[in-house]
Amino acid sequence: MSKLVYAFGGASVEGDADMLNLLGGKGANLAEMSSIGLPVPPGFTITTEVCNQYTQNNEALPEGLKNEVVSALTKVEEIIGKRFGRPENPLLVSVRSGARASMPGMMDTVLNLGLNDETVEGLATVSGDERFAYDTYRRFIQMFGDVVLGVEHYNFEDILADYKDDRGLVLDTDLGSVDWQTIVTVYLEKVEDLIGKPFPQDPYDQLWGAIAAVFASWTNERAKVYRKLHDIPEEWGTAVNVQSMVFGNMGDTSATGVCFTRNPSTGENVFYGEFLVNAQGEDVVAGIRTPQTLTIAEKKRNQSLLPAMEEVMPSIYNEICNIRKQLETHYKDMQDIEFTVQQGKLWMLQTRSGKRTAAAALKIAVDMTNAGLISKEEAICRVDPLALDQLLHPTLDPNASRHVLGKGLPASPGAASGKVCFSSLEAEAIAAKGGKAILVRIETSPEDIGGMHAAQGILTTRGGMTSHAAVVARGMGRPCVVGAGEIRVDYAQQCLFAGGQTIGQGEVITIDGTRGDVMFGAVDTIQPELTGEFGIFMGWVDEFRTMGVRTNAETPEDAKTAVKFGADGIGLCRTEHMFFDPVRIVSMREMILSSDEAGRRSALEKLLPYQREDFKKLFTIMRGLPITIRLLDPPLHEFLPAKEEELEEVAQAAGTDVIEVRARVAALHETNPMLGLRGCRLGIMYPEIYEMQCRAIFEAAVEVEKASGECVVTEVMIPLVASKEEFKILKDVVGVIAKEVEDAAGLSLNYLIGTMVELPRAALRAGEIAEEAEFFSFGTNDLTQTTFGLSRDDSGTFLGPYIQKGIFRNDPFVTIDQDGVGELLKIAAERGRASRTDLKLGICGEHGGDPESIKFCKMLGLNYVSCSPYRVPIARLACAQASLNIKEDIASA
Amino acid sequence: MSKLVYAFGGASVEGDADMLNLLGGKGANLAEMSSIGLPVPPGFTITTEVCNQYTQNNEALPEGLKNEVVSALTKVEEIIGKRFGRPENPLLVSVRSGARASMPGMMDTVLNLGLNDETVEGLATVSGDERFAYDTYRRFIQMFGDVVLGVEHYNFEDILADYKDDRGLVLDTDLGSVDWQTIVTVYLEKVEDLIGKPFPQDPYDQLWGAIAAVFASWTNERAKVYRKLHDIPEEWGTAVNVQSMVFGNMGDTSATGVCFTRNPSTGENVFYGEFLVNAQGEDVVAGIRTPQTLTIAEKKRNQSLLPAMEEVMPSIYNEICNIRKQLETHYKDMQDIEFTVQQGKLWMLQTRSGKRTAAAALKIAVDMTNAGLISKEEAICRVDPLALDQLLHPTLDPNASRHVLGKGLPASPGAASGKVCFSSLEAEAIAAKGGKAILVRIETSPEDIGGMHAAQGILTTRGGMTSHAAVVARGMGRPCVVGAGEIRVDYAQQCLFAGGQTIGQGEVITIDGTRGDVMFGAVDTIQPELTGEFGIFMGWVDEFRTMGVRTNAETPEDAKTAVKFGADGIGLCRTEHMFFDPVRIVSMREMILSSDEAGRRSALEKLLPYQREDFKKLFTIMRGLPITIRLLDPPLHEFLPAKEEELEEVAQAAGTDVIEVRARVAALHETNPMLGLRGCRLGIMYPEIYEMQCRAIFEAAVEVEKASGECVVTEVMIPLVASKEEFKILKDVVGVIAKEVEDAAGLSLNYLIGTMVELPRAALRAGEIAEEAEFFSFGTNDLTQTTFGLSRDDSGTFLGPYIQKGIFRNDPFVTIDQDGVGELLKIAAERGRASRTDLKLGICGEHGGDPESIKFCKMLGLNYVSCSPYRVPIARLACAQASLNIKEDIASA
Repeated sequence: MSKLVYAFGGASVEGDADMLNLLGGKGANLAEMSSIGLPVPPGFTITTEVCNQYTQNNEALPEGLKNEVVSALTKVEEIIGKRFGRPENPLLVSVRSGARASMPGMMDTVLNLGLNDETVEGLATVSGDERFAYDTYRRFIQMFGDVVLGVEHYNFEDILADYKDDRGLVLDTDLGSVDWQTIVTVYLEKVEDLIGKPFPQDPYDQLWGAIAAVFASWTNERAKVYRKLHDIPEEWGTAVNVQSMVFGNMGDTSATGVCFTRNPSTGENVFYGEFLVNAQGEDVVAGIRTPQTLTIAEKKRNQSLLPAMEEVMPSIYNEICNIRKQLETHYKDMQDIEFTVQQGKLWMLQTRSGKRTAAAALKIAVDMTNAGLISKEEAICRVDPLALDQLLHPTLDPNASRHVLGKGLPASPGAASGKVCFSSLEAEAIAAKGGKAILVRIETSPEDIGGMHAAQGILTTRGGMTSHAAVVARGMGRPCVVGAGEIRVDYAQQCLFAGGQTIGQGEVITIDGTRGDVMFGAVDTIQPELTGEFGIFMGWVDEFRTMGVRTNAETPEDAKTAVKFGADGIGLCRTEHMFFDPVRIVSMREMILSSDEAGRRSALEKLLPYQREDFKKLFTIMRGLPITIRLLDPPLHEFLPAKEEELEEVAQAAGTDVIEVRARVAALHETNPMLGLRGCRLGIMYPEIYEMQCRAIFEAAVEVEKASGECVVTEVMIPLVASKEEFKILKDVVGVIAKEVEDAAGLSLNYLIGTMVELPRAALRAGEIAEEAEFFSFGTNDLTQTTFGLSRDDSGTFLGPYIQKGIFRNDPFVTIDQDGVGELLKIAAERGRASRTDLKLGICGEHGGDPESIKFCKMLGLNYVSCSPYRVPIARLACAQASLNIKEDIASA
Repeated sequence: MSKLVYAFGGASVEGDADMLNLLGGKGANLAEMSSIGLPVPPGFTITTEVCNQYTQNNEALPEGLKNEVVSALTKVEEIIGKRFGRPENPLLVSVRSGARASMPGMMDTVLNLGLNDETVEGLATVSGDERFAYDTYRRFIQMFGDVVLGVEHYNFEDILADYKDDRGLVLDTDLGSVDWQTIVTVYLEKVEDLIGKPFPQDPYDQLWGAIAAVFASWTNERAKVYRKLHDIPEEWGTAVNVQSMVFGNMGDTSATGVCFTRNPSTGENVFYGEFLVNAQGEDVVAGIRTPQTLTIAEKKRNQSLLPAMEEVMPSIYNEICNIRKQLETHYKDMQDIEFTVQQGKLWMLQTRSGKRTAAAALKIAVDMTNAGLISKEEAICRVDPLALDQLLHPTLDPNASRHVLGKGLPASPGAASGKVCFSSLEAEAIAAKGGKAILVRIETSPEDIGGMHAAQGILTTRGGMTSHAAVVARGMGRPCVVGAGEIRVDYAQQCLFAGGQTIGQGEVITIDGTRGDVMFGAVDTIQPELTGEFGIFMGWVDEFRTMGVRTNAETPEDAKTAVKFGADGIGLCRTEHMFFDPVRIVSMREMILSSDEAGRRSALEKLLPYQREDFKKLFTIMRGLPITIRLLDPPLHEFLPAKEEELEEVAQAAGTDVIEVRARVAALHETNPMLGLRGCRLGIMYPEIYEMQCRAIFEAAVEVEKASGECVVTEVMIPLVASKEEFKILKDVVGVIAKEVEDAAGLSLNYLIGTMVELPRAALRAGEIAEEAEFFSFGTNDLTQTTFGLSRDDSGTFLGPYIQKGIFRNDPFVTIDQDGVGELLKIAAERGRASRTDLKLGICGEHGGDPESIKFCKMLGLNYVSCSPYRVPIARLACAQASLNIKEDIASA
């Protein structure tokens, strides 16, 4: 039988921080703190293995546990000089859960255990405070009754409320020692009444009951759901920590406090925290009394009138300052500390890595590295990639007041205020006059691109995290809230209804794309600054990053932003977005409405110079970095007007009549456009479209190469391929044009031809397809849609409940579903590389900017990820972390 | 070096029918015929291996071939008594291709080889017909010039046309010997002119040239495309057959004919064929002269005035009658024979299995088995399952005249005539008055079910082989043509435009669902009769069949039809079709329009009794056979009206207002309904729907069991599952209702609960899902849609070109794509069975009725296939063949 109980807090500490799995987070950390000599109230940890035995053995505590506990408790008594269950100077203990992963509030706790009708008198004597003793006793009865005996809270609350009512008392602090004594008596009667036997007076009976109850709480419903949501295995179990109680509320030489070893908001290397004299921990958190600062400097900064600890408890303050240094040196990270001073003696209750803002995380990581405390690798792993987003967008001033109208999904971070407008034209008009607009649409379509660019932010009432609005907004770095279902838009009346309010066009609203809030009026924002640390840190990131980070971009603005953010190239240039410009759309529609190839060719001829110019601009900006260009992908009907009134206009522009246009629109209608005539199917049916696009690409490359002398590296990508045959036909089309352009220019082009792998069949047939394709780019948006049979535009109605019920662990459009979609990626990567060892692999779905998905991509051995420009720094950091983590995984395997 | 040349037609035949791969079909069969002593013009076959060497070796004939050919030719000379290239009695030969699989017309042939300026004189002397000799010579020059020398046909045609013009001659038969001699001279000059050297006079030069040309034609473009389409590997190569020429046009003791050993139309065991005196083979086929019958009986039946062979060539007739018997005994199948009589001597030119109608195939197979000629196994493999369809539907009278308006896809076989009507209501009205209607729609939706039932046939202008119209029509056994794109329907004007004609409501048209034709007016049809052989044959089929055949059915009519056709159960009962009845749709819509669960439950309460009655009827019809019932699958908006004018009606019925209904319709709108809120997602969001359905199923089962005393076997199927979690949640919902019904009835239900595997993710996660699911039914329609990213409703526009270009070998909605979708099925079957060994596996997509797909299902080890009622006999036969074929494959492996 292995050891069941590990002591801490004395001279012989039996655990340490590395025993996380056996002792849980709390237990391991208490052991660690006491082993480096910090004043930790003595106690012991019952291992997680006992929890498993308890669960498996029909909720019985294992043989031998009692002996080990008794002997550990004896040690605690010796260290602290109190005796468990003895009226003279009684030892009280807390009994707490502590699992390997934090599960805040999910399991049970019992405090002040060891009190009974006799020991309460001893506590009164020792503390010199009878009121304190009886108040503590009644709290214990209440907590033990609830957790161990199953006497629900309200029983006790009712008694207390009745007592106060009868006597006209309001606050608990109005009650004196006699009051609490009376209440204790009534509590004890009530418990006996309900459970049919007296409240246990034997402290050991109390202890066994509490230990069993905490173990049992591992399998309560709440904890099970939490574990399911957070992917925590049932078999991990919880440890139980039994620790001697210390009290910060035993008079003016007692206190309790919480502090951070650095400023968690800015990362500044200053001691930062607050405390309360004669108070318990929960009083600090509850915020009823105003806490005091630790340092005089902080007190001055806050213009506080209350004295700092540095002034009122200088020796404790010195002690805690030393501990601050010791902890940072030991843990090599900013710590979040809880302490209690009991009658002039400092006790450390907890230390853990402190939560911090992105700016703080970055500054702390850089400072600690520069100070030699941590390595660059450690610094890199300390910053949450997703948190970097905070540094790249303006955010709402946290102190500003908000009048929230409704909530949607936080689709693109940052905050923006502006006048409500319901059309792109309107948004553009406002912007043209130097005004700020928020574009509000039920949903957006490619025709709204202009308006989205012009607007400060975008709000839609329909669609999910990867809806058109969300994807485009993130690409542009525009704040965006989507799927705000409580808000109703009425285009006819040009207003929106939200929170019982009607808001018309031109009225100002604010959206918070970081939280999903929609607010009335203008809410102040703060412009974040990229500090010097950002550049230093990202430099380190690139030293350890082995995967490329490209961007999804087609406009010069996006390309420039991405280059500024350190992109290694463009991983997805969606050529269709280039056709929505008002001048071009006319030719595009003329092409679509043509009844024969000759008509289409003549319309395409007009588009060629535009498209060539687009590519010239991009090639010039990217200066030799590779650019993956996807040939036309969306169904043609996306370029035709949806509204009857626009038909006339289009007919006129295309030189035909409304009946013709209507017939063509009807003929192009599709039941499921996602699965229709799009992608390479367009190229097969109308090769002239792809021919024009390839000509534009290659001619632009020639011009830019000749002008700049720099090589232009293009990767022509065929979308929606399901078979080698399709790819081969279109590869030949591309090859013919390339040859023509090469011959005309008298130079040889530097290009690859590959495909987007975005259909399950393409993944399965990757071996064959790679015989022809020189690269794969995983289009995980569409691959997720087809693998799940789940339309991202239509999943908004049930995705929420699916995640709540734990059917989906994450939104599969945000984080790759490794079990399903991921297996297809694995199959495709393996089969592709098997037939072409130097096959270039990348990912260009939304997942390319998601850290968890990036780690998976690294495991698959992809060459690069591609994401929206504003995600590039996030992806760079995630790539570096993935490299480091995987190295670590291999090392520890 | 292996043997390159195999002789036939003499005493020592070197090949036989088993040497198909080496000698090709023609060569192997000529060898076989001569080895059983039939009079075959002597010759030899150059093997397919030579073809491969020729192709690989830069189009050079291998070493040693010439020697083998010369020695084989010498043997031919000895047998036939003529000499190759000698003017006295010259031997002429044909040089023909002959691959392992038939590739009619794809490769080249040279006839009459061996003629030159000298031998033509010898031919004239021997035949006694100078005109014949020079006509033959000019034919040879023309053919050799074209095939071997690359002198295109038109060169010769121009010369002949000019010659006739100059002399005022019209028909070739107007030309005499001198004319042909002159033309030969001009032909030879023309060839020399074009190729820069004389036409080869050396017969061996001619022979080497012809052999090389035939081998070269294996890799011509036409042949390559044909092979790609028919899945014939390039490496098979073709053989070349060199055979002495025989002539049926050497006077009145010469003749040529084609015959079948039995009647290929009815299968009757009578000799059946025709011949022409003094004619060549092509004259019979060309149909310029009226052929004579072989037998007197046939002559009488045809009321022919021309004498039968039995009368004019009695001894040849006797000889050929004996050969008929010999061939049937030898080949054990009905043969299609070609023969030539040259100056009183019979020569057999070809024998092969004859093509036949389904009725004939069936009768012949049964007759031959009863005669002990073949085994039951052989009989089963002789009948094409798809051809059985001819026996189950009325068909157009092949002799009736047709005025074709347009063509569509042959979606459901059989022919039907009726009045054009453009709405279901109209069709029902016509049927109610005893009239016949053809329902013409752009596309159909579930609301059209009533009209489709009422109509004789269905025509749509949009959609593919698995569109709603096609699937439902096949299920009902209604003839149906879909996707007739040339036809335009104008609902407003209540007419259709086709073939330049306008056809209004009420005018009669005929559709041929077997060929896809749409015809004006009523075209006569013939009602096929299921002969006694059908029953006998299907009995044998079931003896050898190891896979179950179920049906997709939800109406009592369909279920009865399927039982009549021998179904082993229902593999897919789509419960949604049960809600479209006018009374029920009101409650259904009330349910959908309810804003809360209570409202939905109250509406569902009204639907319960209807649904229970539906199941009671089905259970009673199926009498203990298993029934797989799929819970509600389609998106709810399918039940709401699409047209503005219907909204009012619905609002009234549901007790709400139009604005509300319109809002709900808008809220339920989906961009890609195929990938939206449907299937189990509905069950997760609105469990009360599934609860009602399960209650209906189980209560009906209890009632029928109690009434009949027979056990009802239900299989409750959850659709569109993508994960174990979804399935588990709904399994629990089903289980709770089952328990309630069991408790109330006091008996235990016999049911399984399983899922449809129709999403790639379900296939990949099959191992996990099978931990909970007791059966899988492969929904290959949707699995094909998601694996390819291909909507069956929208693929009509490009599926045709895709098949033409060889991108798709077959329509993937008709025949399973084994490479892609098939791999997912394999993965699902393996992983599913690995976690639950007795997992029941079936298929309920359209593929369940396709023989090629059925063979694949057998290889996967499925327990059953399920198809539309009219496909049941086809599937039964395909299953039996699959069992026999696989047994054979294993035996030969």
